[in-house]
Amino acid sequence: MDQKERCQNSSFLPKRRQELLKWNGWGYKDSKFMLKDSAIMFSGERYPIGHGERLPLFLRWVETELGLDTSVQYHPQPEPAEQDYPPPNVRQEFLAALTAAGISHSVAGDDRLWRSHGHTMHEIFALRSASLPPLVDVVVWPESHEHVVRLVQLSGEHDVALIPYGGGTSVTGALLRPAGEPRTVASVDTSQMARVLSVCPTNLTARCEAGIIGQDLERVLQSQGFTCGHEPDSYEFSSLGGWVATRASGMKKNVYGNIEDLLVHVRLVTPRGVLERGCRAPRLSAGPDLHQVVLGSEGTLGIITEVTLKIRPVPPCRRYGGLMFPQFVCGVRFMRDVAARRLQPASVRLMDNEQFKFGQALKTASGSFGWIKSALQKAYITKWKGFDPDTLCIATLMFEGTEQEVAEQERRVLELATTHGGFSVGEENGKRGYMLTFVIAYIRDLAFDFQMLSESFETSMPWDRCLTVCDSVKRRVRQECSDRGVSSVFITCRVTQTYDAGAVVYFYFAFCYKGVADPVRMYEDVEAAARDEILRCGGSISHHHGVGKIRQRWMEETVSAPGLGVLRATKQYLDPHNVFACGNLYGQLPEPASKL
Amino acid sequence: MDQKERCQNSSFLPKRRQELLKWNGWGYKDSKFMLKDSAIMFSGERYPIGHGERLPLFLRWVETELGLDTSVQYHPQPEPAEQDYPPPNVRQEFLAALTAAGISHSVAGDDRLWRSHGHTMHEIFALRSASLPPLVDVVVWPESHEHVVRLVQLSGEHDVALIPYGGGTSVTGALLRPAGEPRTVASVDTSQMARVLSVCPTNLTARCEAGIIGQDLERVLQSQGFTCGHEPDSYEFSSLGGWVATRASGMKKNVYGNIEDLLVHVRLVTPRGVLERGCRAPRLSAGPDLHQVVLGSEGTLGIITEVTLKIRPVPPCRRYGGLMFPQFVCGVRFMRDVAARRLQPASVRLMDNEQFKFGQALKTASGSFGWIKSALQKAYITKWKGFDPDTLCIATLMFEGTEQEVAEQERRVLELATTHGGFSVGEENGKRGYMLTFVIAYIRDLAFDFQMLSESFETSMPWDRCLTVCDSVKRRVRQECSDRGVSSVFITCRVTQTYDAGAVVYFYFAFCYKGVADPVRMYEDVEAAARDEILRCGGSISHHHGVGKIRQRWMEETVSAPGLGVLRATKQYLDPHNVFACGNLYGQLPEPASKL
Repeated sequence: MDQKERCQNSSFLPKRRQELLKWNGWGYKDSKFMLKDSAIMFSGERYPIGHGERLPLFLRWVETELGLDTSVQYHPQPEPAEQDYPPPNVRQEFLAALTAAGISHSVAGDDRLWRSHGHTMHEIFALRSASLPPLVDVVVWPESHEHVVRLVQLSGEHDVALIPYGGGTSVTGALLRPAGEPRTVASVDTSQMARVLSVCPTNLTARCEAGIIGQDLERVLQSQGFTCGHEPDSYEFSSLGGWVATRASGMKKNVYGNIEDLLVHVRLVTPRGVLERGCRAPRLSAGPDLHQVVLGSEGTLGIITEVTLKIRPVPPCRRYGGLMFPQFVCGVRFMRDVAARRLQPASVRLMDNEQFKFGQALKTASGSFGWIKSALQKAYITKWKGFDPDTLCIATLMFEGTEQEVAEQERRVLELATTHGGFSVGEENGKRGYMLTFVIAYIRDLAFDFQMLSESFETSMPWDRCLTVCDSVKRRVRQECSDRGVSSVFITCRVTQTYDAGAVVYFYFAFCYKGVADPVRMYEDVEAAARDEILRCGGSISHHHGVGKIRQRWMEETVSAPGLGVLRATKQYLDPHNVFACGNLYGQLPEPASKL
Repeated sequence: MDQKERCQNSSFLPKRRQELLKWNGWGYKDSKFMLKDSAIMFSGERYPIGHGERLPLFLRWVETELGLDTSVQYHPQPEPAEQDYPPPNVRQEFLAALTAAGISHSVAGDDRLWRSHGHTMHEIFALRSASLPPLVDVVVWPESHEHVVRLVQLSGEHDVALIPYGGGTSVTGALLRPAGEPRTVASVDTSQMARVLSVCPTNLTARCEAGIIGQDLERVLQSQGFTCGHEPDSYEFSSLGGWVATRASGMKKNVYGNIEDLLVHVRLVTPRGVLERGCRAPRLSAGPDLHQVVLGSEGTLGIITEVTLKIRPVPPCRRYGGLMFPQFVCGVRFMRDVAARRLQPASVRLMDNEQFKFGQALKTASGSFGWIKSALQKAYITKWKGFDPDTLCIATLMFEGTEQEVAEQERRVLELATTHGGFSVGEENGKRGYMLTFVIAYIRDLAFDFQMLSESFETSMPWDRCLTVCDSVKRRVRQECSDRGVSSVFITCRVTQTYDAGAVVYFYFAFCYKGVADPVRMYEDVEAAARDEILRCGGSISHHHGVGKIRQRWMEETVSAPGLGVLRATKQYLDPHNVFACGNLYGQLPEPASKL
């Protein structure tokens, strides 16, 4: 056997997450945007833009583009003390049974709080205001598949509801304790099931416990010369099981595939038993594909304990690229052709003009990452090339493969860009975009300090609806804000993924909530209007974030009434007593009526 | 809009299929292998090996390799006359309701017989013996989605069971009328819903009625410069809806994808209503993917009326290739590496030594297609290259793309083959393999004439199980036959598809049933033993044929008891009165017990 059994690995993440991560914002405690000496900088040493460097243009961008007064900062409320947390609703018998089964658990307030929310804007806004979400009653840490099987049995015996918890990066309200749940609610933290069980170089697969976090998985695989290549923006913190449960998509899906393409085998522990295939064949025809029922189940059907994933040898060569186009429409046509000709590099992303300018504002003082390195170059683009700085847009590229494959891809992509009026702005400009990927999520916390609410949302659509969705959603968001008396609005989009038959668009939306009575409510209303607009234009409810609790109202429209009925019938069969009571996807909606 | 609405097309297939197709064998009436003047030839002008050419080596191969006495031929029983058919069990009220709804129908015996079976060996063997299968009672031909919706309503009102019928090429018993069904059973022939409704060059999609037959679909698409590229071996006769219902796989899936990769949108008419997505986005995260419930549903949940498929521009260049390896094991390692390096041409197939020799036997007299053109070349391979003619094997290749892409692929594949001891045997040798693809299915009818039963079955497995499955199944089949006193056995395999994490193996199995009391039963027992062996070795229940009625016994092992329960819960929800009573997939098995 060429399998290496039980590859051990230890996680970057302590069992007590609070030792490393923020309690009321994104990511590491030591990493954040901050205003210091009249400039914004990013703290810590973890990311390429930190290391004490100033971002001299960012503050001016904030003040001029958003019209914000940055002289006043709004700091969050302090972290609760243990006595501030409501007591848990849990019986000693259940805790004793957990102990007897060897399953670690805690009822400490901070442990419970950390696992009672995800990272939607609403959830973080509430924490900053010291408004606690309804807390789970107990956190449990199973350490194996067998622990999970026992836990599900115990939950039945003790009438306890379970909410699976992976990396905690949900942006759909999926981790929120459902309203009106009278039972003890236990959060099942899978972080202690985080081993790579085996790596098979012949099959190019890795069998992993589902709690492993993206960066840990990559570290273990890369130490053996492999990669799974799955890099959602949350990849530093999100878990393998979470990827499966939400149908995650990674930035390099053109080479590695989305999570559904990577999945070879999965074990789901349900109240009805363990749902899993009897073989690890790459593809089969044995009725409806039940892997696809686990994918996207969002914690409603059971706990994913083990996943066998495809892996690839680490590619010998990675390079970046940057392209500039005179207009967004040219860029979209380029993206369409990239997909039509199957020229997709590992990643290709198209930023609109607003996002191009925003990227400029994140230049560091040293300028080593500068988009446009000199005034001369800028003048060349705007004057000699005739590009309007207020309409141009940028595409960033990431190539992976052998040196020869990368060179060939670069050549063909650049050749195609030229036919759409684009030209190369060099590797550094592209690289910078990808280096910033994992930092973008930290900006929201800074925005809060300036009384801005900001959030992202994404969708997918057929190619012929792409521009319509981009334009209509931006217009609609501005109109909805204007109708509510809010003028300081930032709405921008990027095309982040290309498929044979369509694209993915990611919107970033921010507004100043100064003077707004209920900013969260206003945000929700505007995002709902944007989502209505997306669906009206032919876009989807979500490309990869999922449904959770915040997008259920569009589920019937998305999957049809009989489709929703199938999802409920599946739930009813696998979990008749609603042990997995998170309430995602179909919530408590009444049975849809027959349409025939 | 760049959509061309309502592309009309007429099918090669008449509504009365019996005018063109055999009643008791494969394919066109005018196309068959036959013994004439002491040589086997293939009749008709439809295929490359017909046109009156003799296959001078084939008869000798049959006699020496299989040890058959070909001096006696066993001819099938004549086609039944109308009075031979049992009367239909159908009430006039239902027929009148169909007429009122404008839905064409027939109770003629031949119409019913044609739609009461598929093409498993058992089914054809029975027909040749003039043993009629249990017949459906009426055939209906809806002409639109709306007709199907009305038909499903009427079936409820009149207590009629429905069996969807596409191309009739099922090899799983899926079309057989289920035993003990007391209701009127109507076969829903979708052949009159066969239009390409629109082609969208921007999205590279085609919206089609689901009854369209493969060759019609390709003809219409190619007339507009496109292809869907889906070519299962049944593609001349099988339907788009059938592909979806069975999870079909095409020989060129490396470029175009399997049916699940091609599917952008599907409409399924169920007794609960029309199940379909509200958008045509290329990918979304909105809970479990319900397309994957339709894919593989095998007629148990409803009727597929419309499919939106991905299409591609017709590639400017197609070329073939042939490679020879000294041993099958070298060929399998080559196939593994082809997939690992993602060098897959549109198709790559590896034939074992037995199949290589069989291919040699199908050489025409003119030899234009000869595998090995001259004695000199043969001597070169066996003597100077040191290849043993009893162990060597052959891979055939099909490349599609631009001239440059094809040249590059050829170069890289050949380079890789060399590292596994392989060398090129020229384009003609590869081309011939693909030209014969659609003829192979006709051989079974000739075998019957010589008292041979022959059938194929397929599986998929992880790469590290590929050789084990090939070897173990061959050994097991020979042993099972030997145990039953049958010595004249032909068992051969080919690796037909490569995936990142595994492969597909297709077995061809034939034996002489002279002196065997119940040849069909014996075949079933041996195939069942082979399937047990496959599963024991880590292979799947089926890669693309499906489950139907003949592989249900392995379903629970394949999808787990909770998985089978989910399938049944889905069926129960969408079709509570079992209108779609074909009995495929889960049949009448009792509810599986909980495993926890």
